[in-house]
Amino acid sequence: MKAVTGESSELKSSKLKPGVNRGLSIFDFILRLAAIVGALGSAIAMGTTTQTLPFATQFIQFRAEYNDLPMFTFFVVACAIVSGYLVLSLPLSIFHILRSRARATRVVLVFLDAGMMALLTSGASAAAAIVYLAHKGNGKTNWLAICQQFNSFCERTSGSLIGSFVAIVLLMIMIFLSGAALSRRR
Amino acid sequence: MKAVTGESSELKSSKLKPGVNRGLSIFDFILRLAAIVGALGSAIAMGTTTQTLPFATQFIQFRAEYNDLPMFTFFVVACAIVSGYLVLSLPLSIFHILRSRARATRVVLVFLDAGMMALLTSGASAAAAIVYLAHKGNGKTNWLAICQQFNSFCERTSGSLIGSFVAIVLLMIMIFLSGAALSRRR
Repeated sequence: MKAVTGESSELKSSKLKPGVNRGLSIFDFILRLAAIVGALGSAIAMGTTTQTLPFATQFIQFRAEYNDLPMFTFFVVACAIVSGYLVLSLPLSIFHILRSRARATRVVLVFLDAGMMALLTSGASAAAAIVYLAHKGNGKTNWLAICQQFNSFCERTSGSLIGSFVAIVLLMIMIFLSGAALSRRR
Repeated sequence: MKAVTGESSELKSSKLKPGVNRGLSIFDFILRLAAIVGALGSAIAMGTTTQTLPFATQFIQFRAEYNDLPMFTFFVVACAIVSGYLVLSLPLSIFHILRSRARATRVVLVFLDAGMMALLTSGASAAAAIVYLAHKGNGKTNWLAICQQFNSFCERTSGSLIGSFVAIVLLMIMIFLSGAALSRRR
């Protein structure tokens, strides 16, 4: 029933509102800029995290860096790739503002957005799993929490996840906007 | 240039091929069935994993279950939710086969598919991060590999990830198919 109503109302407004698609494209462009900030901020925050403890034994200095854990490295790489993709997709987004009837490029963008969302979600979740372990530890597997020693390291890595999760939500909204723009009758 | 060519060729084929959208919908339906098998199989494989070691101290019996690690629990929950969603989306997919011009419901489906893909990717990646740690351990944080003791537990949990990653790829293809169906001129 919903679809029928949607279609009949769209039949009425057929070719009446070319500006709506342009509005959606402009909104998409703004979301892309915000997502770049989120993803790039996350990559930089995680990539520059390092902490050296103020004490040392004769042979070992206690030092934590993001690349001690492969999941954090993956997170930085994923955030960097997604930032790069989002920057490269900006010209396409501008093209959609100028030519609001374009469709083939929108489908490509939906597909790439979905792929990049999967990559970013994957990196952010893997990093979040490690952050959780670092905070809480796990008694059964005998993995101890390390955040009591490396407290500032833990805070930085936890905080750097925020930007990536914001970017994931923005990417999801972009996919919806592209779908909405594609569904409109031209 | 690509978009221009696409549009002009679509102008020619305008309203000529109603069957293509139906074909896309049927393909979408088959992919959904496959994704249900993948996600549900993963949830069951992970949820039924348990291993009791053949030796015990006076007080402790060494026993590993999926819910010893919160990320594995999250993985099972995410797989179950996505399976449930995919089953519920089957009627909508059939509706699209019958009424290949429907658009509002397709946009809703693109959005929900993207959300479910994010959920499943998140669960699978968190579980994969733990599986990696269980296999390799991490020297810097002093988390030891547990797979030498719990080898069959490790194998089962590693294997159960496969189905979910297959389901992620299928969901991505579904999003692309919906976008392609939406982009066609009717």
